[in-house]
Amino acid sequence: MTYTYTVAQLAQLVGGDVHGDGSVTITGIADLREASSSDASWLTSAKFRKHLTTSSAGVVLLPASMDASVPCAIVCQSIHPSVAKLLAAFAPRLVGNVAGVHPSAVIHSTATLGDGVVVGPHVTIDASATIGDRTELQAGVNVGENVAIGSDCCLQQNVVVRHGCRLGDRVTILPNSVIGGDGFGFFYDGRAHQRIPHVGGVIIEDDVEIGACSCIDRAKFGHTTIGAGTKIDNLVQLAHNVRVGRNCVIVAQTGIAGSVRIGDGCVFAGRSGASDNITIGDGAQIAATSVPWADVAPGAKMAGTPAQDSTQEHRMLIHMRRLPALAAKLKKLIARVDKVEASAHNQQ
Amino acid sequence: MTYTYTVAQLAQLVGGDVHGDGSVTITGIADLREASSSDASWLTSAKFRKHLTTSSAGVVLLPASMDASVPCAIVCQSIHPSVAKLLAAFAPRLVGNVAGVHPSAVIHSTATLGDGVVVGPHVTIDASATIGDRTELQAGVNVGENVAIGSDCCLQQNVVVRHGCRLGDRVTILPNSVIGGDGFGFFYDGRAHQRIPHVGGVIIEDDVEIGACSCIDRAKFGHTTIGAGTKIDNLVQLAHNVRVGRNCVIVAQTGIAGSVRIGDGCVFAGRSGASDNITIGDGAQIAATSVPWADVAPGAKMAGTPAQDSTQEHRMLIHMRRLPALAAKLKKLIARVDKVEASAHNQQ
Amino acid sequence: MTYTYTVAQLAQLVGGDVHGDGSVTITGIADLREASSSDASWLTSAKFRKHLTTSSAGVVLLPASMDASVPCAIVCQSIHPSVAKLLAAFAPRLVGNVAGVHPSAVIHSTATLGDGVVVGPHVTIDASATIGDRTELQAGVNVGENVAIGSDCCLQQNVVVRHGCRLGDRVTILPNSVIGGDGFGFFYDGRAHQRIPHVGGVIIEDDVEIGACSCIDRAKFGHTTIGAGTKIDNLVQLAHNVRVGRNCVIVAQTGIAGSVRIGDGCVFAGRSGASDNITIGDGAQIAATSVPWADVAPGAKMAGTPAQDSTQEHRMLIHMRRLPALAAKLKKLIARVDKVEASAHNQQ
Repeated sequence: MTYTYTVAQLAQLVGGDVHGDGSVTITGIADLREASSSDASWLTSAKFRKHLTTSSAGVVLLPASMDASVPCAIVCQSIHPSVAKLLAAFAPRLVGNVAGVHPSAVIHSTATLGDGVVVGPHVTIDASATIGDRTELQAGVNVGENVAIGSDCCLQQNVVVRHGCRLGDRVTILPNSVIGGDGFGFFYDGRAHQRIPHVGGVIIEDDVEIGACSCIDRAKFGHTTIGAGTKIDNLVQLAHNVRVGRNCVIVAQTGIAGSVRIGDGCVFAGRSGASDNITIGDGAQIAATSVPWADVAPGAKMAGTPAQDSTQEHRMLIHMRRLPALAAKLKKLIARVDKVEASAHNQQ
Repeated sequence: MTYTYTVAQLAQLVGGDVHGDGSVTITGIADLREASSSDASWLTSAKFRKHLTTSSAGVVLLPASMDASVPCAIVCQSIHPSVAKLLAAFAPRLVGNVAGVHPSAVIHSTATLGDGVVVGPHVTIDASATIGDRTELQAGVNVGENVAIGSDCCLQQNVVVRHGCRLGDRVTILPNSVIGGDGFGFFYDGRAHQRIPHVGGVIIEDDVEIGACSCIDRAKFGHTTIGAGTKIDNLVQLAHNVRVGRNCVIVAQTGIAGSVRIGDGCVFAGRSGASDNITIGDGAQIAATSVPWADVAPGAKMAGTPAQDSTQEHRMLIHMRRLPALAAKLKKLIARVDKVEASAHNQQ
Repeated sequence: MTYTYTVAQLAQLVGGDVHGDGSVTITGIADLREASSSDASWLTSAKFRKHLTTSSAGVVLLPASMDASVPCAIVCQSIHPSVAKLLAAFAPRLVGNVAGVHPSAVIHSTATLGDGVVVGPHVTIDASATIGDRTELQAGVNVGENVAIGSDCCLQQNVVVRHGCRLGDRVTILPNSVIGGDGFGFFYDGRAHQRIPHVGGVIIEDDVEIGACSCIDRAKFGHTTIGAGTKIDNLVQLAHNVRVGRNCVIVAQTGIAGSVRIGDGCVFAGRSGASDNITIGDGAQIAATSVPWADVAPGAKMAGTPAQDSTQEHRMLIHMRRLPALAAKLKKLIARVDKVEASAHNQQ
């Protein structure tokens, strides 16, 4: 599986201007440090600029805003979309799946499939489920009763969407994730924990992506909701009745407790979280491994557990490191004060 | 999928007394703040009492112990069971699965199935496994060799129970969880990590519930054990030879290291854990994200990592926040003592 | 399923010398504290020596290096391999799977299977995949397009290996793990998060073991790599472009962020992690729940978040516990200095 492009062809593909020899042949992509003369590479941040001069890359995609000179460059007005197109130009060519229903799939007679739907091997679709046009259900996927899935979605292998959940258009879910498992709610009757029925569902809006082995629990009543354009990573837990806004980013191993309300454009870094029943304002950012225990203001940058303003948290961390030295200083000072007092006493 | 009840009918269903007009029609359920006049709502805790006066709910379930007045109430002697019944009254109506074995299931000739067992599509049941009466194995479930599952269990989609594990009656396991994976045990022979065979199993007693994408490892020898009535959430890790008592609650993303012994009625809040080989006494509570490194006394409330008494932890957290101010105070004090000493020296 | 061995037979099996009566009959294995006279037990660490004198075990495996006396012992030159063999001698006897392809498996016509391959029920193998000799694909496994799997591997139930990933020989993956899911990379175009295509793959070298419900993401380009002999536990997240060296140990719930480079022989204890783009030197050890934010030197033992030298971290933790007392001491000292100053003032 090899690719051959000229620099001129790549410039056309990624939407940029050639500065140098457009006839150079490129057959791969690599990091600036590892690229050979037949590789295309890129620089998106000034932070890695130092690698430019030593790179052997055959061509480098550069942002138009950056004043840099290399023997051969493709200068891009919008570097990130151009790099994405470059990567796509070297994507592995796959046979992929063709529209149609694999004979091993088990589809209830009352389910409805749109045009061009792909149903892979060993898929199960339960009663009254509806699958939108061109949506792909890969091998082993389970679609529960009354589930509604929009068009152009991709549910990867073994994804489980339980009864009544609703997915918008262009929703992607990576393998082995579970949408609509019962929320974790019990009451203790004095002898045993009794289950609280969870009769709500999950609503996942358009353009949401959910990673692998993640769990989005159904609501006790009403819906657990994920707003349009939100991206969720692997091994994430969203508990019952959580409401996530639009265009949020929730990184791997994050856990959001029950009934938390998250605004638009929030970022939860890796293994962060939120205590139950709190509200996270629009655009708030929660640092990795950090967990707010109380409401977070819009735009706030929070760190630590319990989370505080991240500048304060970082200052606190510095002082924590100095704590043994501080304790020693205090001990020394106590001895000095002892001496001062003793001396004062002797003078009396 | 709509429901229509009169308040009087609901009172009968949930077991409470109508205070108000029993003929009012109710067609849904909602939170006090979001309920309309055709919704039933509830108040279980005085904490949310403030929402009573402004709620538009058509009827509110109230605990008999609470002195509250609303236009239309159902007064319940035991509010939690009544609310559970109310929720159940509005559960989605499902066709569900019918008893019998789906033709796509692969069942070993030596496996034994009880009466009324449901075996969904693409299920695999290996040699000598036994499945109790009315137990439901949903699509894609794998039951390993010599596994024994009791009656009235529900193994949801893609659950894997590996060889030799034993489940009691009324055990529920949410999708994509793994019971009886090999424990993580190796020894280093000077050149490589060699696997320690894990020849034990897992015993899950009656009325246990396990969430989605959780892992209960098999024992090195003997059994990893989960006591009757214990409830476990999503993405939880229980390592080899862990013994969990009865009626424990283990919230999402918790991780219990090898050979930990947990008493009855313990609570592990979200993303908590326990270091290997320690003992957690009956009724102990471990706060969210907290991990004890040593034995925990019965009834103790622990927080932090390493966990300490939660009152001490919270006091420590307050002082940590004040640490920059404390360091400044100390610095100032040192300057004062310097001055006092200098002055004393000058006087001599 | 019972076993009966004489002590002499067991000594032969585990590779040790009998000290005592070789004709004693052994039918099980147990912990020193729980063993009966028909059980074999073992002592691998002097730490548990106290249990020797009170144990009722019929025979105890002892390291030759340990000066201990029990009525009946098998003295072993290498105790860990001998205990592993003892455990294996009491492993449950399973019918297991036989070589061949289950008729319910769906295998693309362009896929290639080696000799003695086991393909379980409901397995899917996509186009151009190759499976090495004697490799076992258990029920529900998905092997993607162009995937290459070596010989003597074992992919347990519902494991998903997505397109283009490459596994060496003797790789074991526990159930419901996902290899080669798309890395979590997006760019924000001012209106929405746009996916960055991840056109790289995953390379897993020989003798790697990966636990259950773990996720190894594919690289943006190039490969996410796991070195030979590395052992990974359950619910672990390895992000895109991570490179793990040889013979590492990565315990459950650990999360490694994007592009981290990990040397050989590193240990990540339970729920530890690493921030993105850092380098962890050979033989470094990261304590449980600890996360380095910067490069870690070879051989370093790190603890805390952000991780520091573990001795420093533990000293810091001790001082944190004393913080309320320290604050009280400081308050008292301030009062004393106030008094000293006031007195000095009065004397002037």
